[in-house]
Amino acid sequence: MHDVKTLQEIFNAHLKEQSFNAQPRELYQPIEYTLALGGKRLRPLLLLMARNLYGHEVKDALDAALAIEVFHNFTLLHDDIMDQAPLRRNKPTVYKKWNTNIAILSGDVMLVKAYDYLSKTPSKNLVAILATFNKAAVQVCEGQQYDMNFENRNDVSIDEYIKMIELKTAVLLAASLKLGAIIGNASNDDAEKLYAFGLNMGIAFQLQDDWLDAFGNENEFGKQKGGDIIANKKTYLLLKAQELASSEIKTKLSAVMYDNNITATEKVDTVIDCYNELNIETEIQKQIQYYNQKAIESLNGISVTRDKLQIIISLAENLLNRKS
Amino acid sequence: MHDVKTLQEIFNAHLKEQSFNAQPRELYQPIEYTLALGGKRLRPLLLLMARNLYGHEVKDALDAALAIEVFHNFTLLHDDIMDQAPLRRNKPTVYKKWNTNIAILSGDVMLVKAYDYLSKTPSKNLVAILATFNKAAVQVCEGQQYDMNFENRNDVSIDEYIKMIELKTAVLLAASLKLGAIIGNASNDDAEKLYAFGLNMGIAFQLQDDWLDAFGNENEFGKQKGGDIIANKKTYLLLKAQELASSEIKTKLSAVMYDNNITATEKVDTVIDCYNELNIETEIQKQIQYYNQKAIESLNGISVTRDKLQIIISLAENLLNRKS
Repeated sequence: MHDVKTLQEIFNAHLKEQSFNAQPRELYQPIEYTLALGGKRLRPLLLLMARNLYGHEVKDALDAALAIEVFHNFTLLHDDIMDQAPLRRNKPTVYKKWNTNIAILSGDVMLVKAYDYLSKTPSKNLVAILATFNKAAVQVCEGQQYDMNFENRNDVSIDEYIKMIELKTAVLLAASLKLGAIIGNASNDDAEKLYAFGLNMGIAFQLQDDWLDAFGNENEFGKQKGGDIIANKKTYLLLKAQELASSEIKTKLSAVMYDNNITATEKVDTVIDCYNELNIETEIQKQIQYYNQKAIESLNGISVTRDKLQIIISLAENLLNRKS
Repeated sequence: MHDVKTLQEIFNAHLKEQSFNAQPRELYQPIEYTLALGGKRLRPLLLLMARNLYGHEVKDALDAALAIEVFHNFTLLHDDIMDQAPLRRNKPTVYKKWNTNIAILSGDVMLVKAYDYLSKTPSKNLVAILATFNKAAVQVCEGQQYDMNFENRNDVSIDEYIKMIELKTAVLLAASLKLGAIIGNASNDDAEKLYAFGLNMGIAFQLQDDWLDAFGNENEFGKQKGGDIIANKKTYLLLKAQELASSEIKTKLSAVMYDNNITATEKVDTVIDCYNELNIETEIQKQIQYYNQKAIESLNGISVTRDKLQIIISLAENLLNRKS
């Protein structure tokens, strides 16, 4: 089996071979720009790791890995328009650097290109691959729509929130693993176990993101502390706090959320005070552990030895221990 | 072979069977709305007709026909945002009725759904089907980008214009025919001949649209006469006029294009006067005939009898004789 670093190198080499040096430049430049921004390449890595469980050679999975990374970047292009995000990985987002129309259309081409890469996968498995990919792709869009809907709602439950992050984030991680398994000719049962692992790990991963925003070390995190708090984002932390709060703390929380006379730092500090009073950090850490545990248990009975699985489990655990 | 009306009924029945009654409603309602707006269903019809050339049964082509119609409607959703079009088939466009974010995201789901339908096509031909569809899908996006680029340019050549409408409009008609041929297990040669027929007919079809805007009968056309003229759209008519105009007419044309002190009717009348002086109507009719002829000639040597081909040729000719 290849180690993480080798798989990363194999994938990055394959990505580099792709050319988006086509006309019209207005359409293809944003694609080159986006794919060059880097990132963890987590989804293709998971796909290749899952493929690697069923044989040393991962070549036949490289185009599917590319498809999943290009798809993920397509969602970023369109999400950044919808969320009016000015920056992505410390660089201007496509819609800011060019314009909204170009971000829409370049995103569209990326989605088609994702299918184009997917179509190159050994055709024996193509029907199963497309079914898995299509389902995840629709769900990611549904998740984004729920996320937007939640901005205008004050009665979002924690169950609804978990369902949203499952759709928006977790299913694509799950599908990446399943696709790798399918390409490796794994049994259905194995493919589903890896899917379940990815799904639960994906939820834990997003909850960890919520935790980092309020409790991460600002220097290591690399983002402004409390960005979610400043934006009144309905994270697990806020929803849980609203659930557990006494009427006194509830009043304090809502007052500070809509108070334009305090600084951002004051707002963040006050909200974190409320979180601390309610032990929200313990609550979210319990949830992260719960989904982490559920992920590991999903692998029970898989036909692959623990020894081989360790590379995927370790990657997941590193992600959950990350400080940024 | 089925006649046009029967194929239309078969397709519409299949379309009606599809359900977009899913959650979140914000995402799926615009899809239901768009697909219910109707339209000529030209692309699925062409696909089924081509399939029908190679056997009476068209059932195996229905999902691909659906894919091409859903894809076409996806492009309308996103194009209407980019072109800021308030109306489509006399109804508010999705981005106007809901908002831009919803139009982006519903469009994205439609693109994925198009692939989902395509994936259901008999898997023996799936690789060829995906390759044809992917190529056309990318080209349609390229055409839209060129169209947007042309708005900001004053040196667009007629060749560039023809290339743009080929990408934006013609390749999808061509691909529809080719997909039908592939599903019918036609030879490569036949599939390519049908593609070439669709491509040339598509160009003629778009030129006819340009002609209708200025020379169509307003009552039958159902749109405001000279809409393209009012919007200073770079149509074949305008580009040809600019090419042929004396410096005097050139001055008259540019003056009226940017004169805010005249009414829309005055503008349209003046520009049409220039077109008449330059015999632009004859020029565009020659071009339409040229591409029409080229389309018919593309079918030379096809393994299907003229008798059978007549249904497709007649449909194309009806489209070229249309007044609206």
